[in-house]
Amino acid sequence: MSHNTFGHLFRVTTWGESHGPAIGCVVDGCPSLIPLSEADIQGFMDKRKPGQSKYTTQRREPDQVKILSGVMVDDDGVQKTTGTPISLMVENTDQRSKDYSEIKDRFRPGHADFTYDAKYGIRDYRGGGRSSARETAMRVAAGAVARKVLPGVTIRAALVQVGPHKINRANWDWAEVENNPFFCPDKEAAAFWAEYLDGIRKSGSSIGAVIEVVAEGVPVGLGAPIYGKMDTEIAAALMSINAVKGVEVGNGFEAATLTGEENADEMRMGEDGRPEFLSNNSGGVLGGISSGDPIVARFAVKPTSSILTERKTVTRQGEDVDVMTKGRHDPCVGIRAVPVGEAMVACVLADHFLRNRGQVG
Amino acid sequence: MSHNTFGHLFRVTTWGESHGPAIGCVVDGCPSLIPLSEADIQGFMDKRKPGQSKYTTQRREPDQVKILSGVMVDDDGVQKTTGTPISLMVENTDQRSKDYSEIKDRFRPGHADFTYDAKYGIRDYRGGGRSSARETAMRVAAGAVARKVLPGVTIRAALVQVGPHKINRANWDWAEVENNPFFCPDKEAAAFWAEYLDGIRKSGSSIGAVIEVVAEGVPVGLGAPIYGKMDTEIAAALMSINAVKGVEVGNGFEAATLTGEENADEMRMGEDGRPEFLSNNSGGVLGGISSGDPIVARFAVKPTSSILTERKTVTRQGEDVDVMTKGRHDPCVGIRAVPVGEAMVACVLADHFLRNRGQVG
Amino acid sequence: MSHNTFGHLFRVTTWGESHGPAIGCVVDGCPSLIPLSEADIQGFMDKRKPGQSKYTTQRREPDQVKILSGVMVDDDGVQKTTGTPISLMVENTDQRSKDYSEIKDRFRPGHADFTYDAKYGIRDYRGGGRSSARETAMRVAAGAVARKVLPGVTIRAALVQVGPHKINRANWDWAEVENNPFFCPDKEAAAFWAEYLDGIRKSGSSIGAVIEVVAEGVPVGLGAPIYGKMDTEIAAALMSINAVKGVEVGNGFEAATLTGEENADEMRMGEDGRPEFLSNNSGGVLGGISSGDPIVARFAVKPTSSILTERKTVTRQGEDVDVMTKGRHDPCVGIRAVPVGEAMVACVLADHFLRNRGQVG
Amino acid sequence: MSHNTFGHLFRVTTWGESHGPAIGCVVDGCPSLIPLSEADIQGFMDKRKPGQSKYTTQRREPDQVKILSGVMVDDDGVQKTTGTPISLMVENTDQRSKDYSEIKDRFRPGHADFTYDAKYGIRDYRGGGRSSARETAMRVAAGAVARKVLPGVTIRAALVQVGPHKINRANWDWAEVENNPFFCPDKEAAAFWAEYLDGIRKSGSSIGAVIEVVAEGVPVGLGAPIYGKMDTEIAAALMSINAVKGVEVGNGFEAATLTGEENADEMRMGEDGRPEFLSNNSGGVLGGISSGDPIVARFAVKPTSSILTERKTVTRQGEDVDVMTKGRHDPCVGIRAVPVGEAMVACVLADHFLRNRGQVG
Repeated sequence: MSHNTFGHLFRVTTWGESHGPAIGCVVDGCPSLIPLSEADIQGFMDKRKPGQSKYTTQRREPDQVKILSGVMVDDDGVQKTTGTPISLMVENTDQRSKDYSEIKDRFRPGHADFTYDAKYGIRDYRGGGRSSARETAMRVAAGAVARKVLPGVTIRAALVQVGPHKINRANWDWAEVENNPFFCPDKEAAAFWAEYLDGIRKSGSSIGAVIEVVAEGVPVGLGAPIYGKMDTEIAAALMSINAVKGVEVGNGFEAATLTGEENADEMRMGEDGRPEFLSNNSGGVLGGISSGDPIVARFAVKPTSSILTERKTVTRQGEDVDVMTKGRHDPCVGIRAVPVGEAMVACVLADHFLRNRGQVG
Repeated sequence: MSHNTFGHLFRVTTWGESHGPAIGCVVDGCPSLIPLSEADIQGFMDKRKPGQSKYTTQRREPDQVKILSGVMVDDDGVQKTTGTPISLMVENTDQRSKDYSEIKDRFRPGHADFTYDAKYGIRDYRGGGRSSARETAMRVAAGAVARKVLPGVTIRAALVQVGPHKINRANWDWAEVENNPFFCPDKEAAAFWAEYLDGIRKSGSSIGAVIEVVAEGVPVGLGAPIYGKMDTEIAAALMSINAVKGVEVGNGFEAATLTGEENADEMRMGEDGRPEFLSNNSGGVLGGISSGDPIVARFAVKPTSSILTERKTVTRQGEDVDVMTKGRHDPCVGIRAVPVGEAMVACVLADHFLRNRGQVG
Repeated sequence: MSHNTFGHLFRVTTWGESHGPAIGCVVDGCPSLIPLSEADIQGFMDKRKPGQSKYTTQRREPDQVKILSGVMVDDDGVQKTTGTPISLMVENTDQRSKDYSEIKDRFRPGHADFTYDAKYGIRDYRGGGRSSARETAMRVAAGAVARKVLPGVTIRAALVQVGPHKINRANWDWAEVENNPFFCPDKEAAAFWAEYLDGIRKSGSSIGAVIEVVAEGVPVGLGAPIYGKMDTEIAAALMSINAVKGVEVGNGFEAATLTGEENADEMRMGEDGRPEFLSNNSGGVLGGISSGDPIVARFAVKPTSSILTERKTVTRQGEDVDVMTKGRHDPCVGIRAVPVGEAMVACVLADHFLRNRGQVG
Repeated sequence: MSHNTFGHLFRVTTWGESHGPAIGCVVDGCPSLIPLSEADIQGFMDKRKPGQSKYTTQRREPDQVKILSGVMVDDDGVQKTTGTPISLMVENTDQRSKDYSEIKDRFRPGHADFTYDAKYGIRDYRGGGRSSARETAMRVAAGAVARKVLPGVTIRAALVQVGPHKINRANWDWAEVENNPFFCPDKEAAAFWAEYLDGIRKSGSSIGAVIEVVAEGVPVGLGAPIYGKMDTEIAAALMSINAVKGVEVGNGFEAATLTGEENADEMRMGEDGRPEFLSNNSGGVLGGISSGDPIVARFAVKPTSSILTERKTVTRQGEDVDVMTKGRHDPCVGIRAVPVGEAMVACVLADHFLRNRGQVG
């Protein structure tokens, strides 16, 4: 069985294949009276869309989003949500009519070819079908709506590692993220990566990456213990993105190496008369509930499985063969995962923001 | 809002506080006609129960599980599931009637005290209440039922890192896991940890850890793309365990450092005429669907937040104070997380095993 | 697959068989800080419990409810909900150890014997097992908690028809409901029913009934179009009660016979400056959303299937036989469905009350 | 909060407003390898679409359905489902650009105008927006897919009552349903209704109706006690249709008037060696589980609220006014509810068919 909806009160259902006529999503549960236009969404779509630099796939998709339902222009001329489901659609325009016969019956290593075939008995091999990262475009669209539900919350992400090369955290500058094609907050690292990724790209290879998402301004108290904890749902949301192999919150795997004394986030009363944490090892989540400190999550993306080097595989018919994935691909698919990670965290936060209102106060 | 149910067709709802009269769970959706006795469950409870070595909390709980519904003795005298909800309960017996006045109004750093208080406005401070790791006893109980739903699947876990000290993977021997109080598969590492953890324990400190769960014999095709992927739901299940800060599947964060050539799991036809993977970087999941190879997941557990060293904090009333957590605690709470990790993976697999039957074949 | 949870934010999971050691439920999602004691629940349990008059089953069950989790005594000595799951349990005490061999292999007509057997392949024949109306005790317990979530809402029910004998609506007096063993709001009808049901009871027969539930004080705006409408969820909640064959809201089936002019609930501004409906054919629900008028729902309960007259049936082994259900039974199971109907409506309203808070205002 | 998804494993999410650019749905969880073309769906759309006789609204909509995802042409040239979400869309073409200023601020009695306004604070008044019966077109589309999941099951519906005028059940002939514009199985009743409804239509009035749905060939054992019973979910599905006020299964409200002897469906072994029921008062559901007999459900539809007679109401601004609904409307909206009722039952059955496979056998 497939399952293409996530969220509890802010629910997103996505649909569509890489090479079908369109992809889309339905955002259900968005409160009414929120100003929402296609332009609000398009800005985020543009960050993710392919073909923007030589470091991403050369597929050309304008990714122009249309709102098909759930909004209305009010008496003041402002288009607002009506509380009914918001249907968003993007037409596929650059489904290059290439010959897929070579991969039609060959399971590309690292791709979902073998498992989709085994599970469903039929597989849309054109561009990966439903398993294509193209699906994430609609997550970004949904995330743009989610942000509108979250007044005062800022959700940003950055690429913090490409292959073995991490950024220098001392150089972190959010403004830099807009200045390079990697969403890199470290100017020096970006320069180094440019050269490094050029090599990867030219050799037809690919490389993994790590993305960090930071949400600031999240109110204290969001999260639904025990099985709908904030970190649980962020982990699920990020792990559901194509090619993600690991997720961590706060100091993550490093926490395994620390003592209780080192790891504890101590508290003191702040100047504004409110409790403050003196550190944020927790990544803004304690007991599955937001602490008011920035929520910090990271996720690891494996290298793009489409590469120009031949790999051993088998066919649907059970023959040993070799396969090479020609055509357009991302040398580092982690780059375009940056806006996707932001969007997923935005959706989780919007959901919890709405769920939390059910609390007696 | 809290949310204490997980699973879709194999659904588990847990309840209970550390120092209430009992804890329990309801396992709903378990198929009928499966032999199930209290003894089947008790063996797993015993692996997790406290007080079994000096490396875990000295709270003494027999953790004797009772089945209150959902089973019946058939004509052959075998107790079997009937398809109705299985209610499991464990009475709390060692709720030491100590004086909690010291922590009643103080937020212990690293604990969920502050966030529970902020979210709910009231908090069961006795032993952590609902946020206590005691809740995980019922996950283990549910996991024991889940295993019964999974014929031919073996789910095991081991502690692979304590603080900065990792096992030597070349020494991995599953049989060793039963021979030391750490569920460590490396005899040498276990010996080293014994000494290391003695030091941690005596100093009233604590340390983090990493656990690895391996599920063998999982059929190809389990998992529900796009938002109920196998790895997504394993990540959520493991991240929902107390104190977990990171989760990874297959080569996890290491995948970020690899090229596409290195990371690809190549395939060849096996001697039995079935496709085989030549490596398992994927951890048994491709595109969110089980590949037939062992499912491998790891999770990082932070150090126990209860330590004997004073830490800075604030009170509910807004005063700066120091707090120290006396009483019984686990120097490395990661140890007892081993059977919990196994149980969570078992529940996810049972759920997907049942969901997958809805497929046309 | 069975499914023993209902509700979305106010979620109730029930468990237990008629002749097992206990029955219970977990109420998850109840907000914190609500005063709640066992006595608050017990009063409603007592209305439903068996053996209170000669018109209901003579099984003797004290139905003493215990709260096992989710509450805590606060500093003022008041026991309040903590926001964590509330586990409620009732021990079965009068599981008469009679000989069930006669019905063990015979499918009693009108009962769920045949279908449970066909679905699950095993069946707890003792007192109907999970399909027994005994399960409804825990709905009443959950409903008592739900009422606490609904300030200013009054939910009452009454028996309005027994067999072909309807009440005279002109005689409706809520106070009368407490004065007779039928929850009948019409004193004259109650007197007539007493005699009528005596005849039914003495002949070992049984009869159907209709119950009406009225919820007053429900705020405008509750309900979740299109598939979580208020009337949709009330219909589901009532239809899920044992032996219910029909549900209607407002004028119900009578609406089929009316013209648009007759059926329209006209409006005028009230003296308090708020819109008022001049009639309530809608039963307080328009477009699936509460209108502010009383919510009115009715449900039909079939006659108890356990009767002292022999009926034709077959055995598990495929033989034609006759069967008669000896032992204790309700001559009109509709009577005890009255508090159950109230409870189910309370749970639906509590759920929607919490869900609705997710609205921008 | 709105909620626009139904189903558990066979999940349908609908979106769209009466006068927006399009309406649509996403069918998620449909098994793979099922042949599915637009033509398979279009036949059912055509049964429901407006403007087919003088007894339904004169809005002209071709209701041409498009499949946007979830299918692929296989090697044999047959288009089949792939197991991924099936996105269906119908463009609105006859959104008559009339002047809505008259009803923009007036709450039409019987419509959802007041409650949508109260709940959401904004309302798409053009043709009723989301609360329009136009939404049901997508239920019919989803139902057409559901039928494909149910081999050997026949689901049909008929109009059995218009106003006070019921059919004569002795005349029931399914073939007649295709011969008149009312889906009436009784030729004589159809002739009488034609005249009767002409009078209703010409006077600008409207009238209620009752629809009966019958599903034959349903396997024994479908349904998920206690809260996902077959009859529970059918009741919810039918009550969620616009204008429905009552739902019953089997003998429904009549069961309230019967004795246990009269109501019991006796059993005997059939000639084929399988148990048979000698009557079907239960409507094919016992204990919430399908019995193998035809599933029979009825639902009552209120008269269309749009009528040409002025009714008293109020404005958003709080003034007493009168309102009359000009424009196109259905004199008996129950007629077009016939294919909708069929579709909803098909969806519920498909869902339970898939859920039931999770059973041990």
